[in-house]
Amino acid sequence: MEKKRFLITGCSGFVGRHFLNCLYEKKEQYDILGIDMKAPAFDVSVYADRLHIDFCKVNLLDRDRLCEVIESFRPRYILHLASFSSVAYSWQHPEDSFVNNTNIFLNLTGVLKELKLPCRVLSVGSSEEYGNVQSEDLPLRENMHLQPVSPYAVARVSQEMLAKVFVDSFGLDIILTRSFNHIGPWQDERFVVPSFIRRILNISQSGCTEGEIETGDTTIVRDFVDVRDVVEAYYMLLMHGTAGEIYNICSGRGLPLSDIVSQIGKLCGVRVHTKVNPDFVRPSDNREVIGSYDKIHAELLWKPVIPWEKTLSDMVACMSGQDGSN
Amino acid sequence: MEKKRFLITGCSGFVGRHFLNCLYEKKEQYDILGIDMKAPAFDVSVYADRLHIDFCKVNLLDRDRLCEVIESFRPRYILHLASFSSVAYSWQHPEDSFVNNTNIFLNLTGVLKELKLPCRVLSVGSSEEYGNVQSEDLPLRENMHLQPVSPYAVARVSQEMLAKVFVDSFGLDIILTRSFNHIGPWQDERFVVPSFIRRILNISQSGCTEGEIETGDTTIVRDFVDVRDVVEAYYMLLMHGTAGEIYNICSGRGLPLSDIVSQIGKLCGVRVHTKVNPDFVRPSDNREVIGSYDKIHAELLWKPVIPWEKTLSDMVACMSGQDGSN
Repeated sequence: MEKKRFLITGCSGFVGRHFLNCLYEKKEQYDILGIDMKAPAFDVSVYADRLHIDFCKVNLLDRDRLCEVIESFRPRYILHLASFSSVAYSWQHPEDSFVNNTNIFLNLTGVLKELKLPCRVLSVGSSEEYGNVQSEDLPLRENMHLQPVSPYAVARVSQEMLAKVFVDSFGLDIILTRSFNHIGPWQDERFVVPSFIRRILNISQSGCTEGEIETGDTTIVRDFVDVRDVVEAYYMLLMHGTAGEIYNICSGRGLPLSDIVSQIGKLCGVRVHTKVNPDFVRPSDNREVIGSYDKIHAELLWKPVIPWEKTLSDMVACMSGQDGSN
Repeated sequence: MEKKRFLITGCSGFVGRHFLNCLYEKKEQYDILGIDMKAPAFDVSVYADRLHIDFCKVNLLDRDRLCEVIESFRPRYILHLASFSSVAYSWQHPEDSFVNNTNIFLNLTGVLKELKLPCRVLSVGSSEEYGNVQSEDLPLRENMHLQPVSPYAVARVSQEMLAKVFVDSFGLDIILTRSFNHIGPWQDERFVVPSFIRRILNISQSGCTEGEIETGDTTIVRDFVDVRDVVEAYYMLLMHGTAGEIYNICSGRGLPLSDIVSQIGKLCGVRVHTKVNPDFVRPSDNREVIGSYDKIHAELLWKPVIPWEKTLSDMVACMSGQDGSN
């Protein structure tokens, strides 16, 4: 039997790395082509006994190149992670958000249509698509009315609507997610949770048992889901999801940022005080965002299994170098 | 008092011409700058006693040029008609639909944000945004769930969502429409109603009183609204609409295409038989599309006033050269 062939766009990022891990743990043999603008900063040779991984630098805006690469690799599955996902940047340069989300998706789907490959795509979207939500709307479900409030979110909603059009009209095999905030080892320190950990670790490593960090509003509540649960959901959706359907990937549980800060403090042995820096507070932010994973659970029996305390403890271990991988 | 300054994008088209007519009929003095990729094919000097009209060739994708033009003209009102509005073409080249709708809108709004002009924009959208509709959804209202079914429609929905984001976040003054099928004198013969008229006029001019034309499915029902009613709505919305709000512009009444064919036949003195050409039938088309204009009527007292029989008779007169202008 031929090995399953996976193409991963945006492969060099945090989620790409965890998806490789996930495939590795399946104990099967896979052929994988990762594409990204930059090479992975992690070592892919650790997977070599089960995963055959090639990497190719591709700008997804270069449609001819993308077509060449896909035609020669002939993937059976595409995990489309590539995205320009900064909300903040999208306010400054909305056109870049469109080009680097909607237009790359149009290139990818255009190539698949042209090549007529029997290939399934998982198009990863964002909980940002829900936009303004009221507490009576919680937990957010996939059939809710979307009210995107940033150019990035609008670009994501466009990508989702285009995917539906292409499934219905061209018979493309595309499955969609709205993924909530994911956290886990190896996440970039520009994101909120790793940035808390780094600063609290700094306090601890300077020998103090008490200290202060500047934060935004830590009373807001978010649905944080472990990236390792997320990539398992992506794998299951690629294998068994329904074309044209949208699935929330979330924990189903809201956590105030303040609980995360306390827990990190506990893990690092630091009493943490927070001081609100108004520059970090986003005025139009929702108070509370919580998703429902009922749909994917009903269809595929997926549910998140990693407790948030374990996620944080693994992240602290990873960032303090205790797991030897960071 | 300074004259009101209007910038019209996509000014050289059918709707632009009628909007100039509408301004002319107001009996006030206006300063107008029309921009388009090509110069108007109609004579603007007929308006010279009341309208000061300049024209400028501008590609709206050239943001620097657009910025120059807007900075120097300093419009108080912008009627944003420019669009790449072929649904059929959007299936072949979805990326062009995005570039020529969403991206030009991002350029226009980006310039306004940069220049901080006190300027109101009317962003013209399309009934295509509603997408798949069921008969129980009729008449379509603005708060309905959108299910766009073509790349063109998705691009239009994106433009609308972006406009809302910019109104809420940057305080831009943008009003939105979803305009239904408009018809009227000077419409391009690639559109369905003028194409019927041209072919029926040909039969009549060849001396026959009976003849056949090939059509798509003439049992489908559409909401046709006279372009002269439409531009009056645009004027009223620019003067008195509410920023961030979306308004249907429609007749509120469904007409089967077959009624239009019979009426044109009557006007031309031809008994018309139709023969369905399967190439003209669009498989995913809605059976029936009818809008509600309750919202704009409640807020601004606008309603369509031109009977459809008069619209058709004016179009026939125009296309047979009887009004001297075509």
